[in-house]
Amino acid sequence: MAHIELGVDETQYPGITGPMAYRPETAKPMNELAEVLLRRQPHPLTPGERELIAAYVSGLNECTFCSSSHSACAAAQLPAGMALVDQVHANLDDAPVTPKLRALLRIAAAVQESGRKVSADLVAAARDEGAVDLEIHDTVLIAAAFCMFNRYVDGLATLAPTDPADYAAAAEGLVARGYVTP
Amino acid sequence: MAHIELGVDETQYPGITGPMAYRPETAKPMNELAEVLLRRQPHPLTPGERELIAAYVSGLNECTFCSSSHSACAAAQLPAGMALVDQVHANLDDAPVTPKLRALLRIAAAVQESGRKVSADLVAAARDEGAVDLEIHDTVLIAAAFCMFNRYVDGLATLAPTDPADYAAAAEGLVARGYVTP
Repeated sequence: MAHIELGVDETQYPGITGPMAYRPETAKPMNELAEVLLRRQPHPLTPGERELIAAYVSGLNECTFCSSSHSACAAAQLPAGMALVDQVHANLDDAPVTPKLRALLRIAAAVQESGRKVSADLVAAARDEGAVDLEIHDTVLIAAAFCMFNRYVDGLATLAPTDPADYAAAAEGLVARGYVTP
Repeated sequence: MAHIELGVDETQYPGITGPMAYRPETAKPMNELAEVLLRRQPHPLTPGERELIAAYVSGLNECTFCSSSHSACAAAQLPAGMALVDQVHANLDDAPVTPKLRALLRIAAAVQESGRKVSADLVAAARDEGAVDLEIHDTVLIAAAFCMFNRYVDGLATLAPTDPADYAAAAEGLVARGYVTP
């Protein structure tokens, strides 16, 4: 049971969809932010790579709903699928991602802890692997935004489905239609 | 110096205004979210009370720019001014806020740590002091959103002015015109 009366059947509106149905005025800019950060093209990072950053931060925040949702979105859009996503969650140092993406994920991990943990060395390491300003900016903001989304979802004690098939089905819809408030 | 080339004079675009000028596509929904959460009326919490929640969380995140900015915005809109804001930052338990606002600020402090720290007891305590669902929802989301804004500002190593007069002047503009991307 969520901490507030969401006005919808929580089993039909799991995770963030419940509070977003409750408060569409705030859902609209939140969805617009997710759409620009995770999906809008052209962009030097693919949607799958950007979803992987979102999934990784959500895992660090131990947010079951967001971690499962964005892992499914990343898996649906990355050639290496869920096997790669699982490896990143388990051990970033050994996961078979590009050196640039690994360096960006390390920046994201610093942001998850605190903005003040993003050092000039972490940024320089990403630049050395070819990261440009837009990639550094968007990595910081994706990580920061998921520190918001994760806290919103868990701070209201929303329902997190346990069946991975539910997240895979939702990811299919998100990949097809995007993060747009109905 | 910020971690990326913002394309503007940082002394003229301090804190969040620099990255927002760099990336207007993400600035637009971020400003819209702040406008709805902190200013839109009617609302059971005054703009000053909502700014105080933002300032308090920004202080817990040790984000100098956001804490100074939103403390100035709260002070400009609360009858007790900066003296009250300073008391909340220094010791919430003793600060002369209403019991309802104190209970909501305790929820905000839990969110700052992790969404998972918002207990049913904290929510029940706020309800006992008269808080309604919308106040609980918006407190959680204001706190969560400032965990984003704070990380964005510090994760990019933006400039934080040191003169309180700069923040007071900016607050005057925000109170008059709101959080709208030009």
